[in-house]
Amino acid sequence: MPGTVTFLTDYGLDDEFVGVCHAVIAGIAPSVRVIDLTHGIPRHDVRAGALALRRAVPYAPAGSVHLAVVDPGVGGPRRGIALRCGDRLLVGPDNGLLAPAAERLGGVQEAVDLAGSPWSLQPVSATFHGRDVFAPAAARLAGGAALREAGPPLDPATLVGLDLPVPRREGDALVAHAVAVDAFGNVLLDAVGADLPAGAARVDGRPATAGRTFGDVAPGALLLYVDASGALAVAVNGGSARDALGLAVGDEVRIAP
Amino acid sequence: MPGTVTFLTDYGLDDEFVGVCHAVIAGIAPSVRVIDLTHGIPRHDVRAGALALRRAVPYAPAGSVHLAVVDPGVGGPRRGIALRCGDRLLVGPDNGLLAPAAERLGGVQEAVDLAGSPWSLQPVSATFHGRDVFAPAAARLAGGAALREAGPPLDPATLVGLDLPVPRREGDALVAHAVAVDAFGNVLLDAVGADLPAGAARVDGRPATAGRTFGDVAPGALLLYVDASGALAVAVNGGSARDALGLAVGDEVRIAP
Amino acid sequence: MPGTVTFLTDYGLDDEFVGVCHAVIAGIAPSVRVIDLTHGIPRHDVRAGALALRRAVPYAPAGSVHLAVVDPGVGGPRRGIALRCGDRLLVGPDNGLLAPAAERLGGVQEAVDLAGSPWSLQPVSATFHGRDVFAPAAARLAGGAALREAGPPLDPATLVGLDLPVPRREGDALVAHAVAVDAFGNVLLDAVGADLPAGAARVDGRPATAGRTFGDVAPGALLLYVDASGALAVAVNGGSARDALGLAVGDEVRIAP
Repeated sequence: MPGTVTFLTDYGLDDEFVGVCHAVIAGIAPSVRVIDLTHGIPRHDVRAGALALRRAVPYAPAGSVHLAVVDPGVGGPRRGIALRCGDRLLVGPDNGLLAPAAERLGGVQEAVDLAGSPWSLQPVSATFHGRDVFAPAAARLAGGAALREAGPPLDPATLVGLDLPVPRREGDALVAHAVAVDAFGNVLLDAVGADLPAGAARVDGRPATAGRTFGDVAPGALLLYVDASGALAVAVNGGSARDALGLAVGDEVRIAP
Repeated sequence: MPGTVTFLTDYGLDDEFVGVCHAVIAGIAPSVRVIDLTHGIPRHDVRAGALALRRAVPYAPAGSVHLAVVDPGVGGPRRGIALRCGDRLLVGPDNGLLAPAAERLGGVQEAVDLAGSPWSLQPVSATFHGRDVFAPAAARLAGGAALREAGPPLDPATLVGLDLPVPRREGDALVAHAVAVDAFGNVLLDAVGADLPAGAARVDGRPATAGRTFGDVAPGALLLYVDASGALAVAVNGGSARDALGLAVGDEVRIAP
Repeated sequence: MPGTVTFLTDYGLDDEFVGVCHAVIAGIAPSVRVIDLTHGIPRHDVRAGALALRRAVPYAPAGSVHLAVVDPGVGGPRRGIALRCGDRLLVGPDNGLLAPAAERLGGVQEAVDLAGSPWSLQPVSATFHGRDVFAPAAARLAGGAALREAGPPLDPATLVGLDLPVPRREGDALVAHAVAVDAFGNVLLDAVGADLPAGAARVDGRPATAGRTFGDVAPGALLLYVDASGALAVAVNGGSARDALGLAVGDEVRIAP
């Protein structure tokens, strides 16, 4: 069975960066399959990348290597890392990007520092570690190389974490935060279905209906639902909850009876 | 020979949705190849998706499974279906999306209802049947499973069709409709080359020249041509016919001598 | 070892064009891998496509076939060509698109004219040679067919070249040109690191600092650096050099002490 690399970045698809990383992987490990999770993470938005990766990893094949690069500190003092979480491996910068996915996968059992990795393309550029450090490491690991060969071990306790907002109760209301907005304008919150207040009927003061899917409310109406990743979410049937509520990622969202 | 899945949606590439479907397919059927036809169908535009799929299927390998998801009614009463048309299989919502491609492939010989399919990921979400119902079915079918195992049979006569506009003659003019606009601004019509009126020299009252390719007219001039899908189409050499004519999909376009 | 096709166009991903080319290749050569370098080249911008291809080819696997289509003259008198440069093959229109990559790969040893190629899909459309001529040729070549079977030989000396701007010295200043802007707003110049004037401290009159990577300057400050392709480049740490300097591709950029 060939290995699988999943690949997520903020590179976008207008430049050749993603394609060049694919080319590097194919040259090192020709039988490895690469699955592009997305390259549309907003530029330098480590949190958005981390949450998308966390949502995606449960659906990847057993044994996958998860390559992720949202790396505003490339070439600076931040570390490059590779992690083992059960049968999965994660590769990317040590800036919190991998942390929520690693936690979802059961925590980090083994970590290495990719600085000076024998697998990196030489000379390593200062601005494109995706190509020169991370893609080669993911390719070798997916091809079956041992994690300990990628670089010296790190204490997992020293890995950089990610601060995430925390929803709170205020009386019979839930105050959560918009953590992602998808291309349809659906707004994901940092809460789960069980957090939904009893009798919830308002989102930021506007009438909303709790339901299962978009068609459960009238066209243009607000829907409160548990989205396919398990998150509490807000949608407009046939429209955009982001636009209807004027929300941006990070904003508080008040859900009340 | 590994099976092939072609994949078309309105998910866009900014979220992880397409990548997660790829991951699901790879987990179920590791040797299956997935070809992304496009994920840029305008949101919820079933007609646009249906026509793009119809244009693409003739070029896919024999035996392909065509997975398509433009699904504004996800989680509601619309059915999920898998169809056999000769050596091809089609998988998606029963909302007309698959109908023109099925007709192009010779019509539906066998149909099944995917509600309650034993292949679906459990629990099936209410809003992401691409991941939970359709991608698993496409993966199993491309891996060689029999269509009848996907769910109970349906009478093909009960499948939802797609209403398409019909061009008409008005005297010596042809009144057609814009059915697609590509990224270059070329406008495809719901007519074929044989429909072109003799001596056609005007499009919506503006001078145009019938020709084979863009360079057959001066830069900036209007061209009437048969596009690579066989449709009658309008272009501007080095420009955008959509912008030049102020056209949107669905608009009437009058072609006259 | 299966062959590899790299694929670069200005088709964008909103239409089914790229997917249809993938489908054609898969039908002809099922075991060939296709790597999308990018399909986001600005429409009809042969120079941008040529430079992106030149940057990417050094990273592709040995023996790759490089398929590239930015083709404003499709269906007109421009030739379709396939070239051999050492162990690589290049396929596309003879409009200069392939020339810089061919030179980077050591020059053209063998060239053929694809007009009338026995491999083309029939009938060949006038507007989509990517599907009908170039993708089939790339597929056959990656599958192991001989270049001489693709069409009659051409004298490499007759191939169309690409005019590129040339940077110049003016006293102790360097006057270069913006040749590409990536999705981050970083501006690549037609100069290399060795061209950087001693003590360079200004870009178009604005203070800038020479450094290795983005974090070497304060947030919002201008950085002069050698980018990962070896080009001299200008960035803003956490921002866009294009926006900060008001630059467009082709503009002169003055770097001075």
